[in-house]
Amino acid sequence: MSQHLTRQNKLQQKIKENGIQGYLVSQNVDIFYLTGSMQTGYLFIPVEGEPVFYVRRSVQRAQEESSCTVKALGSFRNFGEILKTDFPQIFNSNNESILATEFDVLPIQIFNRLQSIVPNVKWKDGSVLIREIRMIKSSDEISMIKTAARAVDQALQQALGKLKAGMTEVEWMSEIEYYLRLQGHFGLMRMRGFNQELVTGMVAAGIAAAKPTYFDGPAGGEGLSPANPQGSGKNKINRNEPVLVDLGCCIDGYVIDQTRTVVIGELSKDLVKAYQTAEHILKSTEAMLKPGTLCEDLYFNALELAEGAGLKDHFMGYGADQVKFLGHGIGMEIDEYPVLAKGFKYALEPGMVIAIEPKFTFPESGVVGIEDTYLITENGFEKLTVTRDGVISVTS
Amino acid sequence: MSQHLTRQNKLQQKIKENGIQGYLVSQNVDIFYLTGSMQTGYLFIPVEGEPVFYVRRSVQRAQEESSCTVKALGSFRNFGEILKTDFPQIFNSNNESILATEFDVLPIQIFNRLQSIVPNVKWKDGSVLIREIRMIKSSDEISMIKTAARAVDQALQQALGKLKAGMTEVEWMSEIEYYLRLQGHFGLMRMRGFNQELVTGMVAAGIAAAKPTYFDGPAGGEGLSPANPQGSGKNKINRNEPVLVDLGCCIDGYVIDQTRTVVIGELSKDLVKAYQTAEHILKSTEAMLKPGTLCEDLYFNALELAEGAGLKDHFMGYGADQVKFLGHGIGMEIDEYPVLAKGFKYALEPGMVIAIEPKFTFPESGVVGIEDTYLITENGFEKLTVTRDGVISVTS
Repeated sequence: MSQHLTRQNKLQQKIKENGIQGYLVSQNVDIFYLTGSMQTGYLFIPVEGEPVFYVRRSVQRAQEESSCTVKALGSFRNFGEILKTDFPQIFNSNNESILATEFDVLPIQIFNRLQSIVPNVKWKDGSVLIREIRMIKSSDEISMIKTAARAVDQALQQALGKLKAGMTEVEWMSEIEYYLRLQGHFGLMRMRGFNQELVTGMVAAGIAAAKPTYFDGPAGGEGLSPANPQGSGKNKINRNEPVLVDLGCCIDGYVIDQTRTVVIGELSKDLVKAYQTAEHILKSTEAMLKPGTLCEDLYFNALELAEGAGLKDHFMGYGADQVKFLGHGIGMEIDEYPVLAKGFKYALEPGMVIAIEPKFTFPESGVVGIEDTYLITENGFEKLTVTRDGVISVTS
Repeated sequence: MSQHLTRQNKLQQKIKENGIQGYLVSQNVDIFYLTGSMQTGYLFIPVEGEPVFYVRRSVQRAQEESSCTVKALGSFRNFGEILKTDFPQIFNSNNESILATEFDVLPIQIFNRLQSIVPNVKWKDGSVLIREIRMIKSSDEISMIKTAARAVDQALQQALGKLKAGMTEVEWMSEIEYYLRLQGHFGLMRMRGFNQELVTGMVAAGIAAAKPTYFDGPAGGEGLSPANPQGSGKNKINRNEPVLVDLGCCIDGYVIDQTRTVVIGELSKDLVKAYQTAEHILKSTEAMLKPGTLCEDLYFNALELAEGAGLKDHFMGYGADQVKFLGHGIGMEIDEYPVLAKGFKYALEPGMVIAIEPKFTFPESGVVGIEDTYLITENGFEKLTVTRDGVISVTS
């Protein structure tokens, strides 16, 4: 059975359990995950029977890429009639059918049009169902995340040779991105969250890394301007200040996420201590990484350790801009399930891939920390990040 | 009056004309346009009186960046109460108030939460209202688009020195992107359309450029894989084949969009003729660029010229994958108003900025064409693109 068919069957099982008769998949990443093609259109998955991928553009390419049944979507106005013809048991039922779609990403305007073309159904939010399936990675997916991990490591090693005091953040970031692109990085990393955007992460030096941002992470960077208020900016990288290097890339659709603390020269004792606390939290988290551990417990444990080290106010951001998590799932998007945060009661399961990123923010000196990505296995974990840990000191 | 205040007043005028009592602005780009800050939250613009920017994160940064009244959003659950307190005439009215938000981008999930916290209002789609205001650029905006135009020109000139037959598309694109990034390119270009994504455009060589894609443009490129099915890919750039170089960048929030046809060696006579037809269409379009011309008429004129040249089937894509437009507005997003397409009855107005991109697709040899960006002025137009026109031939 193809992995796309397996995924479709999992979704059929989920919607059956939830009393849903069909799932209209609308988002590019979800469609790719379920069909192997990212052409635009809608994938309709009935609770039983064969799904159909209705493609707006390009039908030819969808047929080449996907083993699904592909049909031309044609005029959107007729889409309701087509669905009624292809799935009469769902759309011409005497009982009102329940359909799901991704309420977390689908814009209202498109949803209103969908409601108007199939008026006699009830819609439910199916985003969690698909995110839960995507949370458990197949061996193919893990292998692609490993490829991305090696690419980031190699790009970082190559770019370290070019790092000089006095360069701006974006100058050094351009070097890293150049090497990533040559290895097949798409150029941006996909995010599911509304209004969130990410290129390759950031190089952020000294207090610029500590600048609060809208970005849903412990550090965002100052960015290039108020219109790009996140990531690397025009600040110079100075000697003896922490440089937060939070990197990822997207190769064949899969991302990696890792952070290293780099310094030209050496860090102050306080920052070294904070960095060591971050590594200690990571090691302590690793000891809990095995099937059965609740996601929120990883966060609580880290919070306790940060507090014990007297660094609670600096953990995962500072003051009003602290974020309330320790890590997040990754895969095709950087903000996947599970989240290591209060309220996330998922138990760890084999196949989950999680980036864990203990960091400490000091508004007057910068951000230090580490981030590694882990696969949960039957017996514990496998670290997918290949870059060595420890502060990376260079002399030039 | 600050330009943000002017924009807020324009929106207030628009909603007044449409019988709307308030606009809850939700999208990052719209919020930036109206406040000068891109922090996350909601900007509430009442039909009369002072707007308030409710910020989730970072309040501090929003206060630094924006001259708006900034308040902490706090818990989303209390947002309804806060709105009732701050705008009692709208939320405690005896008559049901009508509110607008951007139905074209706001996800259903967030909209449902908004509906639940302020249950006694009626919601309308306000996306067109804000897009119409953004369609007319201020002199500051035009100056930023010119900066982006110069950056793309310079990056292209620098990268042309590195172009060699046998390089892959993405190898050469990495060079272009590197130079763009050094000039302050954010790393991606924003798009408003659902499921659309864009990094810097594409370098697409020979038949790879003619591959149909989901992307809402006349040519999309093969891309790196089915998970990134657009833009530059791993195809080699060969001598004597057309290389479509469709480039943009985003500097301080503003984008430019231009296309040049590059060749190592020379093009076949047929392709030269098609390229010349594209330039002829562009010149003919220029002659119509002045206030009063209807947007759709520019498309009809181009279509007629393409047909007259015997190239109708190749114009703006090929066969089932042709797109039905000649160009599009640009500004902070690459897919702004107006669109030069059937049904777009906007008359050209001073301040509009439009990318015009006549292209011809030949599935067996590639894509040729040109794209320039224009400002509509009182008396005609100003070309914002600075790269010289004509096929760019290099010898190496």
